[in-house]
Amino acid sequence: MNFSYSEKTQALMDSVTAFMNEHVFPAEPTYQTQLNAQRWKTPAVMESLKQKAQAQGLWNLFLPTAYLPYGKGLTNLEYAPLAEIMGRSMIGAEVFNCSAPDTGNMEVLARYGSEEQKERWLQPLLDGKIRSAFAMTEPKVASSDATNIETSIVRDGDEYIVNGHKFYISGACNEECEILIVMGKTDPDNDNKYVQQTQILVPRNTPGVQIVRPMEVMGWDDAPEGHAEIIFENVRVPASHIILGEGKGFEIAQGRLGPGRIHHCMRMIGMAQRSLELMCERSESRVAFGKTLSKQQSVREVIALSACEIEQARLLTLKAAHAMDTVGNKGAKELIAMIKIVAPRMACNVIDRAIQIHGAHGLGQDSPLARFYSYARVVRLADGPDEVHMMQLGRNLASAYSF
Amino acid sequence: MNFSYSEKTQALMDSVTAFMNEHVFPAEPTYQTQLNAQRWKTPAVMESLKQKAQAQGLWNLFLPTAYLPYGKGLTNLEYAPLAEIMGRSMIGAEVFNCSAPDTGNMEVLARYGSEEQKERWLQPLLDGKIRSAFAMTEPKVASSDATNIETSIVRDGDEYIVNGHKFYISGACNEECEILIVMGKTDPDNDNKYVQQTQILVPRNTPGVQIVRPMEVMGWDDAPEGHAEIIFENVRVPASHIILGEGKGFEIAQGRLGPGRIHHCMRMIGMAQRSLELMCERSESRVAFGKTLSKQQSVREVIALSACEIEQARLLTLKAAHAMDTVGNKGAKELIAMIKIVAPRMACNVIDRAIQIHGAHGLGQDSPLARFYSYARVVRLADGPDEVHMMQLGRNLASAYSF
Amino acid sequence: MNFSYSEKTQALMDSVTAFMNEHVFPAEPTYQTQLNAQRWKTPAVMESLKQKAQAQGLWNLFLPTAYLPYGKGLTNLEYAPLAEIMGRSMIGAEVFNCSAPDTGNMEVLARYGSEEQKERWLQPLLDGKIRSAFAMTEPKVASSDATNIETSIVRDGDEYIVNGHKFYISGACNEECEILIVMGKTDPDNDNKYVQQTQILVPRNTPGVQIVRPMEVMGWDDAPEGHAEIIFENVRVPASHIILGEGKGFEIAQGRLGPGRIHHCMRMIGMAQRSLELMCERSESRVAFGKTLSKQQSVREVIALSACEIEQARLLTLKAAHAMDTVGNKGAKELIAMIKIVAPRMACNVIDRAIQIHGAHGLGQDSPLARFYSYARVVRLADGPDEVHMMQLGRNLASAYSF
Amino acid sequence: MNFSYSEKTQALMDSVTAFMNEHVFPAEPTYQTQLNAQRWKTPAVMESLKQKAQAQGLWNLFLPTAYLPYGKGLTNLEYAPLAEIMGRSMIGAEVFNCSAPDTGNMEVLARYGSEEQKERWLQPLLDGKIRSAFAMTEPKVASSDATNIETSIVRDGDEYIVNGHKFYISGACNEECEILIVMGKTDPDNDNKYVQQTQILVPRNTPGVQIVRPMEVMGWDDAPEGHAEIIFENVRVPASHIILGEGKGFEIAQGRLGPGRIHHCMRMIGMAQRSLELMCERSESRVAFGKTLSKQQSVREVIALSACEIEQARLLTLKAAHAMDTVGNKGAKELIAMIKIVAPRMACNVIDRAIQIHGAHGLGQDSPLARFYSYARVVRLADGPDEVHMMQLGRNLASAYSF
Repeated sequence: MNFSYSEKTQALMDSVTAFMNEHVFPAEPTYQTQLNAQRWKTPAVMESLKQKAQAQGLWNLFLPTAYLPYGKGLTNLEYAPLAEIMGRSMIGAEVFNCSAPDTGNMEVLARYGSEEQKERWLQPLLDGKIRSAFAMTEPKVASSDATNIETSIVRDGDEYIVNGHKFYISGACNEECEILIVMGKTDPDNDNKYVQQTQILVPRNTPGVQIVRPMEVMGWDDAPEGHAEIIFENVRVPASHIILGEGKGFEIAQGRLGPGRIHHCMRMIGMAQRSLELMCERSESRVAFGKTLSKQQSVREVIALSACEIEQARLLTLKAAHAMDTVGNKGAKELIAMIKIVAPRMACNVIDRAIQIHGAHGLGQDSPLARFYSYARVVRLADGPDEVHMMQLGRNLASAYSF
Repeated sequence: MNFSYSEKTQALMDSVTAFMNEHVFPAEPTYQTQLNAQRWKTPAVMESLKQKAQAQGLWNLFLPTAYLPYGKGLTNLEYAPLAEIMGRSMIGAEVFNCSAPDTGNMEVLARYGSEEQKERWLQPLLDGKIRSAFAMTEPKVASSDATNIETSIVRDGDEYIVNGHKFYISGACNEECEILIVMGKTDPDNDNKYVQQTQILVPRNTPGVQIVRPMEVMGWDDAPEGHAEIIFENVRVPASHIILGEGKGFEIAQGRLGPGRIHHCMRMIGMAQRSLELMCERSESRVAFGKTLSKQQSVREVIALSACEIEQARLLTLKAAHAMDTVGNKGAKELIAMIKIVAPRMACNVIDRAIQIHGAHGLGQDSPLARFYSYARVVRLADGPDEVHMMQLGRNLASAYSF
Repeated sequence: MNFSYSEKTQALMDSVTAFMNEHVFPAEPTYQTQLNAQRWKTPAVMESLKQKAQAQGLWNLFLPTAYLPYGKGLTNLEYAPLAEIMGRSMIGAEVFNCSAPDTGNMEVLARYGSEEQKERWLQPLLDGKIRSAFAMTEPKVASSDATNIETSIVRDGDEYIVNGHKFYISGACNEECEILIVMGKTDPDNDNKYVQQTQILVPRNTPGVQIVRPMEVMGWDDAPEGHAEIIFENVRVPASHIILGEGKGFEIAQGRLGPGRIHHCMRMIGMAQRSLELMCERSESRVAFGKTLSKQQSVREVIALSACEIEQARLLTLKAAHAMDTVGNKGAKELIAMIKIVAPRMACNVIDRAIQIHGAHGLGQDSPLARFYSYARVVRLADGPDEVHMMQLGRNLASAYSF
Repeated sequence: MNFSYSEKTQALMDSVTAFMNEHVFPAEPTYQTQLNAQRWKTPAVMESLKQKAQAQGLWNLFLPTAYLPYGKGLTNLEYAPLAEIMGRSMIGAEVFNCSAPDTGNMEVLARYGSEEQKERWLQPLLDGKIRSAFAMTEPKVASSDATNIETSIVRDGDEYIVNGHKFYISGACNEECEILIVMGKTDPDNDNKYVQQTQILVPRNTPGVQIVRPMEVMGWDDAPEGHAEIIFENVRVPASHIILGEGKGFEIAQGRLGPGRIHHCMRMIGMAQRSLELMCERSESRVAFGKTLSKQQSVREVIALSACEIEQARLLTLKAAHAMDTVGNKGAKELIAMIKIVAPRMACNVIDRAIQIHGAHGLGQDSPLARFYSYARVVRLADGPDEVHMMQLGRNLASAYSF
């Protein structure tokens, strides 16, 4: 057992850290200003950051070895600390073309897409030229159970017709978003409920795709990506837009969600770590009732507990990543469940404490903390509620330890 | 000891409940639509709601007996369940002219204001014709300790000149806000640091009053009231605008903050109660993994714990209100500290659980839960951090129980 | 609504407090010494305390009005603060003949017993001459669901024959324990599972009653009462020992458990309150790292939170007691569930914090804290696990708030 | 980074696991029976277990490389999982001669002892022939701050005279305990408070050493080792019994406490892991309200959370051990503080949940859970309260992250 990062990883960590410090953090105010001017368009400064990152080879770092020549062939373990560093800024991941939901969509296309699909959508996604979305969640059903999905996908000659109602489709409000992967049912009456679903590519500008409104999360619109409510009304796409084939939707979803979701966890470690550092700085500089906050035992306890929780979650993330690399997503499923349970709750706790120590400053727009909190809170639901991961993990362990 | 509401209270509770159900909840969507059209102006529907409430005598209910003929002469204990009911909607309190910071400002003017001040500002406030703000918090100092305030108020002939930098001045972004009570120092070098401060009335449209920007709280702008950052640059007001006299600022602040702040607690009981009810409805209607959520033991535990916490906080609020009525704010100071510690944390916990049970719906704009959460979270800081109340209460109890 | 104790209650509170201070606390060391000498016999000092209390009319205070002429005819609301005061010492309740399980057993006999049963067992119990036990829990089944009970009670001529295996039968290790109320089944095959059970009186010295061993709770034997494991092997008692009649066991159990169990809650308020006071004294007197503990903000927060939790639980206990008095146990069932959920958890938290602040002293035998902790922890299971109360409360509320 | 155990470690883990399963767990009832017969003497079965373990070379595993030829030369990282496995039984560590406080005492003697001291006491300790104790804590002062110690050690010719009052001296009630390392002051007036202390060897049977009584912890006497209250009254020992020299007491204590204390953490991982496994077994086998407990979502959540907490604490323990091996105790001080904060709290939480799921069974003597709980609770105070570790860690981090 060894707890040091490899030389290769350490070198990349240094590069990404340097890039964040030199380019990303200083660009945050510009990003915000440009965003306020046009809400649903990626601010111009992002394009310039992406070009710099690509020029330095800090690009598509998330794509694992299996997808070479795309990406840099990093293992999940190697990628984890890089995602953590990116997570220190809300705009960090996109700079390195490592942001959701594009990452998951690129993985799906690289693994299951036809050559035509790869050429038309994977390539521009890998190049950071377009954005994408994954349309699964529906307002009327508990979508954490994919078998509940009601959107219909019906063959009609050389085309499929899509009808359905989706919401919280992250990224789909963005004008740069060109393509949606839509989950629906081609065979809703099949006795085997795991072959009813199909995933199909729907260009966002196809007639019948109505972006109803941006949904909010805890009061945020998360522009420029946003979370769209979308109605699909007799939307027609060529039959070749099916991914992998009819009835393969559930299989693809399973393959997609495993590794993609742990990226959130990695980033949340970075978000929590930055919050801890802000908490420390604040506690050393702020005077109340005659002494700096950091001289209060209660503040020291809050700092200490936060550091303990972050370090433990970091180690668990790394172990889960390592397991994915060595025994596969299925073999790692318990560790993946664990980190999904742990990371967002830990981040919520740490960020909330950082806010409290900052007072009004911690609530407002001059600090990243309120946005961090919202993101961490949303993740507790975004990949299915915590409770679903606990259900699966608890059930498996109860069974495993009994005989 | 008796845990029933009096007949008088019960009758008012019925009236306010009926008013909320018939008029307030149905008006919420209209309010939101009108607000989106002009962000810093009170939506027209509010004026119509206020007129209806005033016509029914459901007006200025917060003003205690001491302020008759203003108000209805309710005790704090009688007002508490009414405020709870109002708290079930974010727009509830204003309808009955019971919303902060006007309530506290009216109390200050009723108690300490000159006849001229009362006529010019108290009367229109009591009539719900104008709004007001209380300008205390400053970005550069820990303002929970009022002795840190740096804004200067300097006499110059028949006028005072105000210079200072404030932020999170709630209500001051609203175009209907006409008057600010500004806390500053007229005698910053006085050895007695409790007589350095003065409160002075500054009309919002006085030259030199610059509303810099609306501050956010957890991503919300809380329009149309907002939380303003304000720079006072050589702002001149007549000497008669001083409240009570130079050096009386701290004394007034003490008198103002005690009872005013417990109104938040009362409303948060209502907010938490409504969240619990929404949680219950959701859990009975939503099906996941083959059964309604309410059949899950974990969901039942969440509902049960929430109900326990709400009921306990409600009783503590009532006891604190009763103590204020019977032994005064000073005699009730420990119960006031307790409920300020308890209510916002309880509300945060209950609302957060309600969000989790609602899934994505709980995060978004079609549910009141996200806004409720933000409000409860802000209150943990708005009257001074929880930790300040715990400091005072813990210190007093340690001393009281030792000998 | 009124939060003051009545004059009658206040006078009794003063009397019980004075008695505790003058007689009970000073007798604790003697009690312990005598107990160490003979583990399963009530220490002689207890008899002397009981005589003093009885002489002062502080006797059988728990028995509500309905049971007059027995007891003093106090309501639950009047009794609650008295039980709280008794709860400040582990030996407090017995002094006033108010200790479990005798209290519940006396209520059963007063309400359901035959004249012969009352004369033979209720009278000496009311006089504090004998002790009793209630034999329900069985090791092999989840006994929180009374329908699982397996002990058999079979009619044989003028007698019943009892066979079964019980454990955690509190009080039954005590040599003064003369009578057991045994819960078993006379009609195990009845389709209506609520009429299978019967309660029968079994003198502890009946042949076939084997006290196997004292069960421990968290390492304590809770002598001299103890928690016995008992085997009933062909135990024969006269048919007249049946309480109320065959098939009435479940009905009696329901009647018994409601009010009896809330006494625990009342006592736990007192236990937590005393722990808080000890915590405060310790924090004012102990110096670490150059200042008294009470000057540490973290210690103040712990004291403040504990006080908030105790006061809330106290109010909830009083409200539940009041509801039992005014709308009956059934109408009060949600408040009873709430306080059963809240009180032991609150007490565990407060006592645990008090231990931590006392350091090694808090763990040891010179402080009451460790024993308090064990008692509070046991109560989380003793009346059925917390989770059962949450199940019932959550289910009822989910249903009540939906339509 | 690599999360697999080395082959060497894995082989030792297999050996220790096999030994535990074949010999230790089956001996637990005998150990208990023998202990009940003579409370302060090590049960005979322990001697037989120790001989078996020594014969298999599973002996003194805790001693790190630096102490070769004593021990097996394992790193802390290699030892950690072995200590975890031993921790699954309360009698596990002693079997392998790895139990506190002997381990720390052996380290002190190996590192700082004279040849004479080593021959007389280290060798029999390494051979498992005698036991020892470390007498530091005093009832009258906050002993977590070693500078408060009041015991006096005064030179008188060729001897030292020791006078003082100690308590909670773990191991000192055991008849096999032959030697005490006593911490006291030889130079109480020295301006440098870190050179006032001295450590001296005092044979337990020296005249003037009075074992006053066994102190309890949460109701347990922890026989046969016990926690003694000891009065030293004019106790005379030869001058050669000083360890390292006058004034070196603080330095030795620092060296002793670092690594010794993390052994507790390792064992607590094992204790929590076994509790989790018991919880799982129980939940699969126990039926309540018509289904096995493991089918309840709330039980699954409890299992899942416990597993998450254990795995995180395990990783943190391993990282701290690795840091001690690679950068030394000083370089590892933050990780050591973290795991000391985390492990006992985690263990308390997990064990408490396991108790709750077991119902009455979890409280009693047929399950290891109650004893586990007491041990974990005690550790929260035994090496200085959690709060002291948080104070140091919080202070260091606040400073480190600010500039």
